[in-house]
Amino acid sequence: MAFRLTPHERGFYPLFTRAAENIVVAADLLADLVASEGPDRPALAAKVKDTEHDGDSVTHEILVKLNSTFVTPFDREDIYRLASSLDDVLDAMEEAADRVVLYRLGVLPAGIAAQVEVLQRAAAATAEAMPKLEKVEQLQPYWIHVNSLENEADDVYRALLGELLAPPEDAPPAEVLTVLKLKEVVEVLEQAADAFETVANTVESIAVKES
Amino acid sequence: MAFRLTPHERGFYPLFTRAAENIVVAADLLADLVASEGPDRPALAAKVKDTEHDGDSVTHEILVKLNSTFVTPFDREDIYRLASSLDDVLDAMEEAADRVVLYRLGVLPAGIAAQVEVLQRAAAATAEAMPKLEKVEQLQPYWIHVNSLENEADDVYRALLGELLAPPEDAPPAEVLTVLKLKEVVEVLEQAADAFETVANTVESIAVKES
Amino acid sequence: MAFRLTPHERGFYPLFTRAAENIVVAADLLADLVASEGPDRPALAAKVKDTEHDGDSVTHEILVKLNSTFVTPFDREDIYRLASSLDDVLDAMEEAADRVVLYRLGVLPAGIAAQVEVLQRAAAATAEAMPKLEKVEQLQPYWIHVNSLENEADDVYRALLGELLAPPEDAPPAEVLTVLKLKEVVEVLEQAADAFETVANTVESIAVKES
Repeated sequence: MAFRLTPHERGFYPLFTRAAENIVVAADLLADLVASEGPDRPALAAKVKDTEHDGDSVTHEILVKLNSTFVTPFDREDIYRLASSLDDVLDAMEEAADRVVLYRLGVLPAGIAAQVEVLQRAAAATAEAMPKLEKVEQLQPYWIHVNSLENEADDVYRALLGELLAPPEDAPPAEVLTVLKLKEVVEVLEQAADAFETVANTVESIAVKES
Repeated sequence: MAFRLTPHERGFYPLFTRAAENIVVAADLLADLVASEGPDRPALAAKVKDTEHDGDSVTHEILVKLNSTFVTPFDREDIYRLASSLDDVLDAMEEAADRVVLYRLGVLPAGIAAQVEVLQRAAAATAEAMPKLEKVEQLQPYWIHVNSLENEADDVYRALLGELLAPPEDAPPAEVLTVLKLKEVVEVLEQAADAFETVANTVESIAVKES
Repeated sequence: MAFRLTPHERGFYPLFTRAAENIVVAADLLADLVASEGPDRPALAAKVKDTEHDGDSVTHEILVKLNSTFVTPFDREDIYRLASSLDDVLDAMEEAADRVVLYRLGVLPAGIAAQVEVLQRAAAATAEAMPKLEKVEQLQPYWIHVNSLENEADDVYRALLGELLAPPEDAPPAEVLTVLKLKEVVEVLEQAADAFETVANTVESIAVKES
């Protein structure tokens, strides 16, 4: 594989941008799936699966480029961490969509829609930031924003866990298998929020090194 | 500790081979344990535990060698990732064997035997590949094979989760504690499959760098 | 950000020491919380949360220093791994405290107090070791001790899982939601023990490199 020797390998930025834009699509599909009734869900989950496949090929392009590029715009391990955390976001979203269908879940608790809505905002912020990686020092508002979104996601997640596992005394007794199914969906959505934060933290550490 | 300065430190290949062959033994023991009835299981789980101890010492040998070797055959972080993902495979297998015994599980769902059978094939492929690391560019069939095995494992895993958490309406009601026990075994076996994929992906990235 | 060019950047040691001492405080608070009855727990969980915030700022200081320091006392990735595994310890402790309160758990099984007691000893050993990082080759007793504590923690953890999921035939039937709540607390405490071991393994690998 030929080594590119341009002093500064810019080709990474469009790939990270594509990866992030793909996540925006997946987050919107996930929001539709969560809002929809049972019958429409399998088709929406299949579309989320497609975005995950697209994401996998972008990740693969980034890693091949990383391994064949002599001069990278920033530390190789930061490029690697950025690519794999973007990949983790999408994997978690796809798993959430899959589980909702697999477990034949009915109407979902409002908290799950709230989790997905936070993910949509994190996806939008990430997609807006990726094209600006070349001026990474200007991205501080982005990583601060995503960190606060992650705190918001934590609060929603925590409230959902309490709702599922420690419902108010006067609530109707929960069907335990349903609790198990919902808990898994809720946890994988929280993983997606954590992965968005890892992306943001990686961008911050790149900026600090360049400052 | 003396620094070895041979231009190319070959001593790593036999260690990775030993680690992989050890995993083959563990996978076969795990298959016996899953197929066997309760009474034979504790002895088989103890043997799996022994292979895990052997694996730990090989991992330790690799890391000591890594830290004391001046010229490594490929990137230090790739050697580290290879060693730790092989270690992760064995840890997951040992935990699966342990849980089956600890939870006094009876006859296991066929899907669990299917998971282990995929792990046996991944172990065989890995043990065949490790001695050829020196000609890593020839190992493409290996990493493609293991990636497809991981997809196979995912399908089995997904089907098992559906079977456990969303059984057909007409199925006898599952005992929830049993569901929890089986779910844990199923999940840790899936972790082993993922770790095999990490091994294969690491080998691929080594090959790409050398190409 | 100015680059410090002192041949040997010592400023990291006090930061690691502060991080470890902060963990000692959190472990003691967690022990009080586990021993206490319901009403006192929220206030104790809030204090654990405070220590986690303190820990986050120390971690942040370490990472900023890492990214702005030209000559580090040992490999950058070891400093990074040390900082993040100390952070993982505290995150797990905070989550455990939070869950006990969130799930309104009553008197806890003795095994949970035993888990926390092992964590207190690991915290003390770590806090004693961090100031001695400069003479890392003398820390072998520390990492051997923490590895044996991790084995002790594994045994307690394993016994607790068996107690929760496979209680003796003659035991009163467990309330499954309670099993789920306790299982989550038990698992996150085990994660804390694992993170202590990662800290110790990182210190060992630093020592091996320097030998």
